[in-house]
Amino acid sequence: MRAGDDLAGLIARALGADPLRDRDVVVVAQKIVSKAEGRVIALSSVEPSARARQMAEEAGRDPRVMELVLRESRSIVRFERGVLIAETHHGFVCANAGVDRSNAGAPDAVVLLPLDPDASAARLRAELGDRSGADVAVVVTDTFGRAWREGHVNVAIGVAGMLALKRYAGQFDPDGYELRVTEIALADEVAAAAELVMGKLDRCPVAVVRGLELPGSDETAQTYVRPKEKDLFR
Amino acid sequence: MRAGDDLAGLIARALGADPLRDRDVVVVAQKIVSKAEGRVIALSSVEPSARARQMAEEAGRDPRVMELVLRESRSIVRFERGVLIAETHHGFVCANAGVDRSNAGAPDAVVLLPLDPDASAARLRAELGDRSGADVAVVVTDTFGRAWREGHVNVAIGVAGMLALKRYAGQFDPDGYELRVTEIALADEVAAAAELVMGKLDRCPVAVVRGLELPGSDETAQTYVRPKEKDLFR
Repeated sequence: MRAGDDLAGLIARALGADPLRDRDVVVVAQKIVSKAEGRVIALSSVEPSARARQMAEEAGRDPRVMELVLRESRSIVRFERGVLIAETHHGFVCANAGVDRSNAGAPDAVVLLPLDPDASAARLRAELGDRSGADVAVVVTDTFGRAWREGHVNVAIGVAGMLALKRYAGQFDPDGYELRVTEIALADEVAAAAELVMGKLDRCPVAVVRGLELPGSDETAQTYVRPKEKDLFR
Repeated sequence: MRAGDDLAGLIARALGADPLRDRDVVVVAQKIVSKAEGRVIALSSVEPSARARQMAEEAGRDPRVMELVLRESRSIVRFERGVLIAETHHGFVCANAGVDRSNAGAPDAVVLLPLDPDASAARLRAELGDRSGADVAVVVTDTFGRAWREGHVNVAIGVAGMLALKRYAGQFDPDGYELRVTEIALADEVAAAAELVMGKLDRCPVAVVRGLELPGSDETAQTYVRPKEKDLFR
């Protein structure tokens, strides 16, 4: 996958004789979206700032990667014990602001998150719809760590064509108890489900989730961005 | 579902003509496990402590529920703006230490997490294996909020018979770049996937995940408990 490649066309061809259907959710790993959009940087082209050099030394890391992490960050949430948790310009909180050297396509390459993953998802959705005639949803995923809990899971960083949050507030259980706060992060759960068949080293960057019949919506992955003033852990 | 009910028998009967197969993952909502194990408390039986009364007043909540939350907590991680994030005795960090009034079976009832959800999963796995002859895995789920991110997702609080963490450290991508930290929380992703078909008000507390062929393992959900000294967000 290279800058300018036709991702929708590649997906359509890979599906072959089993084309997309209405209400399918096409789950796409961020990395191929970023590559198609040219969000790949050669480390040799990166000139680290003084701050990046200092932080890299502190963390025992490559100063050029640290420079990219700082450029991709709106703020640093934690920087301790070699771990850097940042808020990206999109508002996501994750390790290294999503900057990642794995599966980058070349030993010298680093992949950044898409500039606007919701726009990527919407564009891909439109292109897949044009080709297939099917009304699909698209979820762009990345792999995030969590506070308090070991292990990483896939989450949605771009969403188009499906409800992002299923809100139960104001609904009642069978005993008449009113649910007050539960909101299910549907696209995050779709992303997690898809990871189980995509893996990290299997070169399988796309999965189709079929049969869920999730409600359509104009919501995006920005629905998941918790405003800093509401957040107890920043 | 009531204390002492035969959960494995109910699941087997519900499956009817489509019995369990080797490598199926049976995903069970914590609430029915807790109910079968008698972890339901009538609020009228709870005498709140002075501390529970004070915290309940501060948060505008029921002092008897607050008392149960405190009993179920090993430590309080945050208590702000009416939100209480606690570390349970199992080591999970979640709202209200998992104490929940929804779908409790009676207006006066509150459900607590199982005392040992891994033991619950292991027991259910053995019972389902005895009945079906199939070597299945079992995941007990609850719905947790996240730091930084709006929305709740299902996670695994009990695991038996499957690998909990898929560890990529030391493996290489196609360009020879060595993955260093990625560990995928497989049972959490299975839990999230299952939530999509279980829902909160559909009275569907069990799902079977089939076709994944996840590796077997003795790992439990304790694999996900990040030691406090490793945690940047406590």
